[in-house]
Amino acid sequence: MIRTHEAGTLRKEHAGRQVTLAGWVARRRDHGGVVFIDLRDASGSAQVVFREEDHAHDLRSEYCVKVTGEVRLRPAGNENPDLPTGDIEVVATEVTVLSESAPLPFPIEGTTGVSEEARLRYRYLDIRRQGIADALKIRSQATYLAHDVMRERGFVYVETPNLTRSTPEGARDFLVPVRLQPGNWYALPQSPQLFKQLLMVSGLERYYQLARCFRDEDLRADRQPEFTQIDIEMSFVDQDDVIELGEALIGRIWKETLGYELPSPLPRMPYAEAMARYGSDKPDLRFGVELTDLTEYFANTAFRVFQQPYVGAVVMPGGASQTRKELDGWQEWAKSRGARGLAYVLVQEDGGLGGPVAKNLSEAELAGLAEATGARPGDAIFFAAGLPGPSRELLGAARLEIGRRCDLIDESQWSFLWVVDAPMFEPVVDEVGRQTGWTAVHHPFTGPKPEWADNFQDQPGEALAYAYDMVCNGMEIGGGSIRIHRAEMQQRVFDVLGISKEEAESKFGFLLEAFKYGPPPHGGIAYGWDRVCMLLSGGESIRDVIAFPKTASGYDPLTGAPTPITGEQRKEAGVDAKPKGETPAQPAPTPGA
Amino acid sequence: MIRTHEAGTLRKEHAGRQVTLAGWVARRRDHGGVVFIDLRDASGSAQVVFREEDHAHDLRSEYCVKVTGEVRLRPAGNENPDLPTGDIEVVATEVTVLSESAPLPFPIEGTTGVSEEARLRYRYLDIRRQGIADALKIRSQATYLAHDVMRERGFVYVETPNLTRSTPEGARDFLVPVRLQPGNWYALPQSPQLFKQLLMVSGLERYYQLARCFRDEDLRADRQPEFTQIDIEMSFVDQDDVIELGEALIGRIWKETLGYELPSPLPRMPYAEAMARYGSDKPDLRFGVELTDLTEYFANTAFRVFQQPYVGAVVMPGGASQTRKELDGWQEWAKSRGARGLAYVLVQEDGGLGGPVAKNLSEAELAGLAEATGARPGDAIFFAAGLPGPSRELLGAARLEIGRRCDLIDESQWSFLWVVDAPMFEPVVDEVGRQTGWTAVHHPFTGPKPEWADNFQDQPGEALAYAYDMVCNGMEIGGGSIRIHRAEMQQRVFDVLGISKEEAESKFGFLLEAFKYGPPPHGGIAYGWDRVCMLLSGGESIRDVIAFPKTASGYDPLTGAPTPITGEQRKEAGVDAKPKGETPAQPAPTPGA
Repeated sequence: MIRTHEAGTLRKEHAGRQVTLAGWVARRRDHGGVVFIDLRDASGSAQVVFREEDHAHDLRSEYCVKVTGEVRLRPAGNENPDLPTGDIEVVATEVTVLSESAPLPFPIEGTTGVSEEARLRYRYLDIRRQGIADALKIRSQATYLAHDVMRERGFVYVETPNLTRSTPEGARDFLVPVRLQPGNWYALPQSPQLFKQLLMVSGLERYYQLARCFRDEDLRADRQPEFTQIDIEMSFVDQDDVIELGEALIGRIWKETLGYELPSPLPRMPYAEAMARYGSDKPDLRFGVELTDLTEYFANTAFRVFQQPYVGAVVMPGGASQTRKELDGWQEWAKSRGARGLAYVLVQEDGGLGGPVAKNLSEAELAGLAEATGARPGDAIFFAAGLPGPSRELLGAARLEIGRRCDLIDESQWSFLWVVDAPMFEPVVDEVGRQTGWTAVHHPFTGPKPEWADNFQDQPGEALAYAYDMVCNGMEIGGGSIRIHRAEMQQRVFDVLGISKEEAESKFGFLLEAFKYGPPPHGGIAYGWDRVCMLLSGGESIRDVIAFPKTASGYDPLTGAPTPITGEQRKEAGVDAKPKGETPAQPAPTPGA
Repeated sequence: MIRTHEAGTLRKEHAGRQVTLAGWVARRRDHGGVVFIDLRDASGSAQVVFREEDHAHDLRSEYCVKVTGEVRLRPAGNENPDLPTGDIEVVATEVTVLSESAPLPFPIEGTTGVSEEARLRYRYLDIRRQGIADALKIRSQATYLAHDVMRERGFVYVETPNLTRSTPEGARDFLVPVRLQPGNWYALPQSPQLFKQLLMVSGLERYYQLARCFRDEDLRADRQPEFTQIDIEMSFVDQDDVIELGEALIGRIWKETLGYELPSPLPRMPYAEAMARYGSDKPDLRFGVELTDLTEYFANTAFRVFQQPYVGAVVMPGGASQTRKELDGWQEWAKSRGARGLAYVLVQEDGGLGGPVAKNLSEAELAGLAEATGARPGDAIFFAAGLPGPSRELLGAARLEIGRRCDLIDESQWSFLWVVDAPMFEPVVDEVGRQTGWTAVHHPFTGPKPEWADNFQDQPGEALAYAYDMVCNGMEIGGGSIRIHRAEMQQRVFDVLGISKEEAESKFGFLLEAFKYGPPPHGGIAYGWDRVCMLLSGGESIRDVIAFPKTASGYDPLTGAPTPITGEQRKEAGVDAKPKGETPAQPAPTPGA
């Protein structure tokens, strides 16, 4: 090692010791003949004193230097109790510039006015900032803890292929031309779903992986074309076993990184209840403001807007005092979410009801409204009416917005829960609102709850899946299910989904083939690792916990990727080759065993 | 859990206990009214006894079953001491078939006559075999140990991008079209080399990753288009620091998985010595049979074949008794390696020298030859003459072949060493053998040894790199170097390599840009994880330690990947789009900071 000590580890007891440090010039202060420099390395920083100007006059910000000197106690009164090394300083006798630094595009300390584009372009400077470096370190720590939990429980870490065949996950695949088989392409995996199920067929029983996943999705804030999940699958288990494991994993991580003890067991909320009370399948329970179902209340209303299959409301505390502009703002907000608007009633301080909707309601309807919704004088009541699903989602989004605007969310709290008993299927609806079929809410291998095992096909809209999502602070951080392992049941699911034998064969024939050979009952879960680490580190975006993230369009300002390719590369990679045999869509091999 | 116990964990002390097991029917023996079944799960297997035929008559090979029954001691004399569960059996009272199995394409036990293609196509059945499952488990264990060593030493696990820009590693990149930026392509990384160096610039100081790497190489036995390395980089270190870490990592793994203590420190051998004595930069030291340099010996020879810059020999013990056919076989062997043949002399039992070459040598040359080469009566002496490099390689390969044919390699031994002091550069030679330039033996960021820091450019053929390879049993399992961190030195390397400023800018401009901002001295190493795990598990191919490997042509017999894509996929992915701006080769962004 070039150094004898790490700067951030020096303490009183090192006083009198000769040390050699290496790191970066973080801050420099000149005091007439004496120069003070904060020398920063990965462990922290220490103050270095140069008695003679000439030792230090070359040292500029972010130079990488090696300093030899003696540790001494700081003169009385000059200690810095905010700094772990604040009791000491190093009196330099020798300094070597290991490398110089050009003027920085932005200062390492402070974030004011630095665009994200600049931060990503100079990511190596951005990571010199404490916040980003700390986020990467907490991610590393969490990853280690995950390995430790899984090892203790006998899981086998298995790496699955990244160059593979399309997986039926709903998003688009990234494709890779194959030079050695011109005209043929690999797909990058959207998840290791099929491989982990194959590993269960193989009898490994307990699989996990820190898996890179790839989804070619449209532009969305805070999405990355590649992301990481902790992917888990187990054989011979029931829902409770996977849930117990998930709590142990997340519990250990929160405890050891943040000192926070998760409640044990975590609460479980049925999907239907989450939708009814919070208008969300991932409710944020750090605050109340629940939805009220007013469908019955307005069952006989003369107000046409409320003559709908569902009418609901959510109350904004103190919302009656909003300005006209603020109230109009809610309409814009609702429209930007695809709704027609957001009906509201204002509860005056004297209990009277105002706002445009109030005029349309009957005396009786007005009289009981505050009580029915729990609104108090000074509150605003927002309404949604229509189909239950979209109406609840609108109210759920309004609830979150209310939480933010009214500062109701205690950011120091953690709200963990499981949302269980999600529907197996949801209707596919065409442009004019007619149902044309069913789609799987999770994926087509998700099993029904035991009580729906035999008859889910009779009431696809009612059937519940054996699926579970872990929700933290209003974000889904993990999700999984007990899978189907019986061919006969799988076939019934395909029938509901309208997936033909040919389509099933072509998309995942190799999994169906594998299931002919004694597949065990199995289930699993996957945690969105970027999100988990973002929550742990207190970041606001998953980009804060990814060392080299891309922008929303998939551009990397650091390397300039993606780039055009040359004609030669194109030719060599076989991009334009026709596959041999001219088969337009090659099914998975299904040997006649 | 569906079961109460794992089959392989049952022991004497469980006798009398009611248990429920779940697993696969491994073997079945019928003994008139009593049926014995070996029930296998991931933990091992246990014998299950069905007293009445009808409980068991449906159970066929590899059915997945749940069995409830009572553990009892096996009748005296029926114990099986070879089996951990050999003292007990489970008397079944209830059995449930969880899933049936079609007749198997090959038996789970025994490997005779099963083609690798079949094994890969039904990989999920192949993994039910003990050998493959054990290999995956030892890989998982080794991976955990690697995480543990790196955590203890304060390394930060950082995930680097898989969708990125071409890296200058020598092999071809796999390319990925980018739908959201039509006409632009990502490259899959050949290694995280540039990113790990950027992380050193970022001040993280200690980085590691279990990194997936992608190389689009030509067909070669035991290569995979994607492979895994344990990738490590450290700041402020010297060669000794990286070597110490490497020994700690590999030492811990060998000790905890195999109970083998590595010698500490491992021997280090200069590259030149390895080439001279073993004809290899990754010598297998489990046996002797060293090369002899006869250049001086034949300095004045009249035999034209030996009038070369280098003449060397290697001795095959007992080789004089080979048949004519065997000796001809060596000629074929040499030709298949691109040599013209393999000259030899046979030392007769009476000390006389035979074989075609002997006739061409002088009395004096013949007289001292046995002593000069260390050959004893009954041995064969093989020769190579020509340029030192290829001649030594031929002799080194012959040495390995001799080791195999003469059974000189003790397969129970481990031979670890570091090969150090490799040359920085090697000549680029055109078809007619003229040197046209220099190429980097490692990569262009590899630093010179300190004593060559200032003048490597004056004698590129002599300069030594600050690089080190860990070799185990004749295989390179890890390699790395201390990198260049000074722009001025990097420029001198580019000059030797004939890399223009434009080319450097276009290939790795973003790294050179980063190096303007106080890069620390740094170095690292990467271990070929598939190879390490192959050695640990005693496998013969890296395919044995990869759950879902591909064939040499990159085909996956299980999923059928790669496959043709549809016209729609092609259009959507933007495969044929022209990039905007029509820049033929876009340089990395180099802001004018």
